[in-house]
Amino acid sequence: MNGKIPCMLPGEIEKQSFAILTEELGQIAIPPEHEAVVKRVIHTTADFDYARTLCFSPGAVAEGVRALREGAHIVTDTQMARAGVSARTLQGLGGAVHCFMGDEDVAEKAKARGVTRAAVSMEKAAELKFPLILAVGNAPTALIRLSELIEEGEISPRLIIGVPVGFVNVVESKEIIMNTGVPYIVARGRKGGSGVAAAVCNALLYEASGRTL
Amino acid sequence: MNGKIPCMLPGEIEKQSFAILTEELGQIAIPPEHEAVVKRVIHTTADFDYARTLCFSPGAVAEGVRALREGAHIVTDTQMARAGVSARTLQGLGGAVHCFMGDEDVAEKAKARGVTRAAVSMEKAAELKFPLILAVGNAPTALIRLSELIEEGEISPRLIIGVPVGFVNVVESKEIIMNTGVPYIVARGRKGGSGVAAAVCNALLYEASGRTL
Repeated sequence: MNGKIPCMLPGEIEKQSFAILTEELGQIAIPPEHEAVVKRVIHTTADFDYARTLCFSPGAVAEGVRALREGAHIVTDTQMARAGVSARTLQGLGGAVHCFMGDEDVAEKAKARGVTRAAVSMEKAAELKFPLILAVGNAPTALIRLSELIEEGEISPRLIIGVPVGFVNVVESKEIIMNTGVPYIVARGRKGGSGVAAAVCNALLYEASGRTL
Repeated sequence: MNGKIPCMLPGEIEKQSFAILTEELGQIAIPPEHEAVVKRVIHTTADFDYARTLCFSPGAVAEGVRALREGAHIVTDTQMARAGVSARTLQGLGGAVHCFMGDEDVAEKAKARGVTRAAVSMEKAAELKFPLILAVGNAPTALIRLSELIEEGEISPRLIIGVPVGFVNVVESKEIIMNTGVPYIVARGRKGGSGVAAAVCNALLYEASGRTL
């Protein structure tokens, strides 16, 4: 390794990163039950805005952890988020991670109806018979369709992670999902993304599986 | 779709997003040759900091586009970044995207030598016989090992996309990679990530393949 930089393995780097970001968070008060999620998102983004924008319905973290311990499956709206979720930890708890965005039938239905694949992929999620956590890091249309499916009684997720990123309909879709009555973890505002979605899932997974830093 | 939000398809949303972010960028002067990359990264992150932190070696974008048109392959340091690169566009140009982080031989070598898988995966990249673009969105150790391999003459990438995120060794590793003499696109500072790495690749890919918004 380069002489100027000490060689460290990922575990040590993670520990030191959390120590640094905890120190820099300083006086920002984060409720203890939100801490693991908020810190993992900041660790993933180096963006302290999330200490302010992450919103949790009461008991959301506990509910997510409980669902994962009961074998919940996770459905994401991007292959990137799917790739970022710790599949091994999830498998160890009896769950699995899905993303239907690349499925032929989803593409066909979306095209035929003039809607997004993200919206149709939420309908496909509604057909799953497992306890579900929906992790949306990209498509506001996924959140909007999800709110409709909830209202119609077609799906009742244990938790919605609503963290799409962007400039069009993103802010609004997050506000809608916070009014469905379903437990949520939402990054209010424009920021979010597949990496944030995966980071929230992993924070819950590590808590559910008893992994410590 | 929800009555409060107009139904839009991804293509329209993307166009409108770029219009909004272009307006908000306002007076920030971005050299025309960097515009596509900077805007796609902001589109992916909703974070205008990148207008300030993205650094380009002279001609880096043109070199990346040229390499892709000549069939360059892309190597990433995470499965997330790999999943985010437009594989179809890359394939159309004769390239492919690789990530060696999950490979058995990489894990074994890393364990035996007490180094990171990211470092070993750069060594594996050096064995590829294609023109190469390295896209590092996570591991500073990948950039550090890469700088050594360049110095030793073991690899000469056409372009390095150096955008790891984090609190430990990240800032330093980016400075090191900007001094190797290899064309680079780097997000100076702590921010970056797999999504940013993929966004930079896709901006270059869309330019190389003639895709317009």
